[in-house]
Amino acid sequence: MQLTDLETPALLLDRLKLDRNIARMREHLTQLRVALRPHVKTAKSMDVVKRALEGPPGSVARESCGITVSTLKEAEYFLSNGVTDILYAVGIAPNKLEHVAELCRKGADMTLLLDSVEATDAVATKGEALGMSFPALIEIDSDGHRSGIKPGDPRLIEIGTRLHGRAGSKLRGVMTHAGDSYNCDAVDAIRAMAVRERDAVVECAEALRAAGLPCPIVSVGSTPTATFAEQLEGVTEVRAGVFMFFDLFQAGLGVCSLDDIALSVLTSVIGHQADRNWIITDSGWMAMSRDRGTANQRIDQGYGVVCDLGGRPIDDLIITGTNQEHGIIAKRDGGAIDTTQFPIGMLLRVLPNHACATAAQYPQYHVIAGEPVVEATWPRFSGW
Amino acid sequence: MQLTDLETPALLLDRLKLDRNIARMREHLTQLRVALRPHVKTAKSMDVVKRALEGPPGSVARESCGITVSTLKEAEYFLSNGVTDILYAVGIAPNKLEHVAELCRKGADMTLLLDSVEATDAVATKGEALGMSFPALIEIDSDGHRSGIKPGDPRLIEIGTRLHGRAGSKLRGVMTHAGDSYNCDAVDAIRAMAVRERDAVVECAEALRAAGLPCPIVSVGSTPTATFAEQLEGVTEVRAGVFMFFDLFQAGLGVCSLDDIALSVLTSVIGHQADRNWIITDSGWMAMSRDRGTANQRIDQGYGVVCDLGGRPIDDLIITGTNQEHGIIAKRDGGAIDTTQFPIGMLLRVLPNHACATAAQYPQYHVIAGEPVVEATWPRFSGW
Repeated sequence: MQLTDLETPALLLDRLKLDRNIARMREHLTQLRVALRPHVKTAKSMDVVKRALEGPPGSVARESCGITVSTLKEAEYFLSNGVTDILYAVGIAPNKLEHVAELCRKGADMTLLLDSVEATDAVATKGEALGMSFPALIEIDSDGHRSGIKPGDPRLIEIGTRLHGRAGSKLRGVMTHAGDSYNCDAVDAIRAMAVRERDAVVECAEALRAAGLPCPIVSVGSTPTATFAEQLEGVTEVRAGVFMFFDLFQAGLGVCSLDDIALSVLTSVIGHQADRNWIITDSGWMAMSRDRGTANQRIDQGYGVVCDLGGRPIDDLIITGTNQEHGIIAKRDGGAIDTTQFPIGMLLRVLPNHACATAAQYPQYHVIAGEPVVEATWPRFSGW
Repeated sequence: MQLTDLETPALLLDRLKLDRNIARMREHLTQLRVALRPHVKTAKSMDVVKRALEGPPGSVARESCGITVSTLKEAEYFLSNGVTDILYAVGIAPNKLEHVAELCRKGADMTLLLDSVEATDAVATKGEALGMSFPALIEIDSDGHRSGIKPGDPRLIEIGTRLHGRAGSKLRGVMTHAGDSYNCDAVDAIRAMAVRERDAVVECAEALRAAGLPCPIVSVGSTPTATFAEQLEGVTEVRAGVFMFFDLFQAGLGVCSLDDIALSVLTSVIGHQADRNWIITDSGWMAMSRDRGTANQRIDQGYGVVCDLGGRPIDDLIITGTNQEHGIIAKRDGGAIDTTQFPIGMLLRVLPNHACATAAQYPQYHVIAGEPVVEATWPRFSGW
């Protein structure tokens, strides 16, 4: 099937770039002697994730140690595809424990996440009621970004002691997510963040061990810090997901180049407003997502960078505005466009702000590999 | 099933509010002697749309005249549910004409939309190749918002003449969408926009008729202008969709009250950062959508207004930040919160910025009616 046979909008995935991105991250982590636990929240596809787990053909391989999920639906799907070692890296809500137990009965080795005595007690009590022992990591706050216990907080040992001491729960270690790396304005700042991320979680692991508690897993993760980390001693695994695809936001951070972005949205020209220098397309915010992550970066990419069918960016064309199923393409500076060069029905490709948000709008990837030919269709899913 | 039995996040739809919103719009349009052609792009559910088409029990009823869709997937689904009169209100891309033809063969009476001689020729030529005649409306630009021909543009008659004259196409009328009503800052401005919308499209209809061309359909639509229009003489139908649900953006425009919003997201408290006055939940941007429509309104509602289980807003609590599966609840002014009042596992409801974007993240509505009980589950769909 040719790209010209697709109905638009459609989500394209360049397999060559995907494989290159995965190989680069795996090689980097192999050098750092740490395992990759890919985060599957962006991909939501076994076809994609198996490449991250096994490595693309020819890549050096260090064993992966399972996956990271952001929803139990992801856990369900990947378990049904044979992946059993699953870290659910969102603080557990008590109403999800029955579902977790069901996944364990089906063969999953689920690891939960929590950061409070209250949640620890809820998990342990439920585990005891079900005759199960839920393994959990303690979430560490390494950057003030979101959740977690700060290094030095006495609750760390209290939670660890309870998790370890009760029959319904098990202490498996610590994890942190340097989400604030998304706010860094230079690569040096990301490097510093990677040090802080590693130091915080290793300090907590050592504190737990000093208190006589087990801490086999020491987990860090975010695509920016994983990319620029220079040493991860004491860390056992790295979680990262968006690195497989990359996006304009990561390019704006300096984590990748535009040429590394493996995802794009195929769109059709459906009209023009020549006097306003607008090209109207059928890729609105439903096709691109509402994500405007680059709005606060040095270069605001609107709703996406417009490329030709070969994936090469065209001048300074971006999607400057969207409605649900309409996109407006204009020059970044609002300058003149010869709209006759973009006739009705012309196909264009658009690089997205945020791979996670854009991919979530589609039930499948149309896979390409350098040529305007669809070599495969890989299903993906959304929701909870 | 009780709300407490649901796994979070989940999308709730209050049927009583839905019915009240639909009844109000139907009564208003009946008084204006104009038909409602509900836009189904928000609902994407026959259970919802049949109420808009037939009216909730006890409402006054003027005949509806079919539906408006924003994707061919919507057309496909509603056709399979017995709705045949379908206006596809996005400028047609040539790569979709085969699909349109297939829908017509299955019994759909599809009406297309276009605003250029180029698209007209593509449609007519394809129709002739297939031995079909595609009916189309000409899109009118009443407010400089997006697509369409401006009143007075000589291309109107040229397009009309071609549509009418060729065997592969048929002129069915004119339509406009006053999308700029979303930028109005007062109800008076919306009223003025409704006048401009009506005048533009009626002027074009008269110009076509004066040129000896047929113009049976004269279509306007947007929830704000439909709500505040005071006379629609010469208009045959009104398209609107989000009025069924309403949202914080419409409330910010003055089109509805917070109490009219029929959609909410059920979420669980999963953690706290007491020193920062944060409550962490499992409704991130995947659950709420990335839409931040209220960011530029008088009151910025963050990613949503936090309510108790009965749907009543709590103080000034909003979702101030999100990650993919995490929400951060804080006071609008960053003030103190007694986080012990929001224990781990507590259920909250969140009113969304934009019903279309939030609903799109879910495969179903959990229907409630005043009580914390799920009385039904209505499936919905996404994608193209």
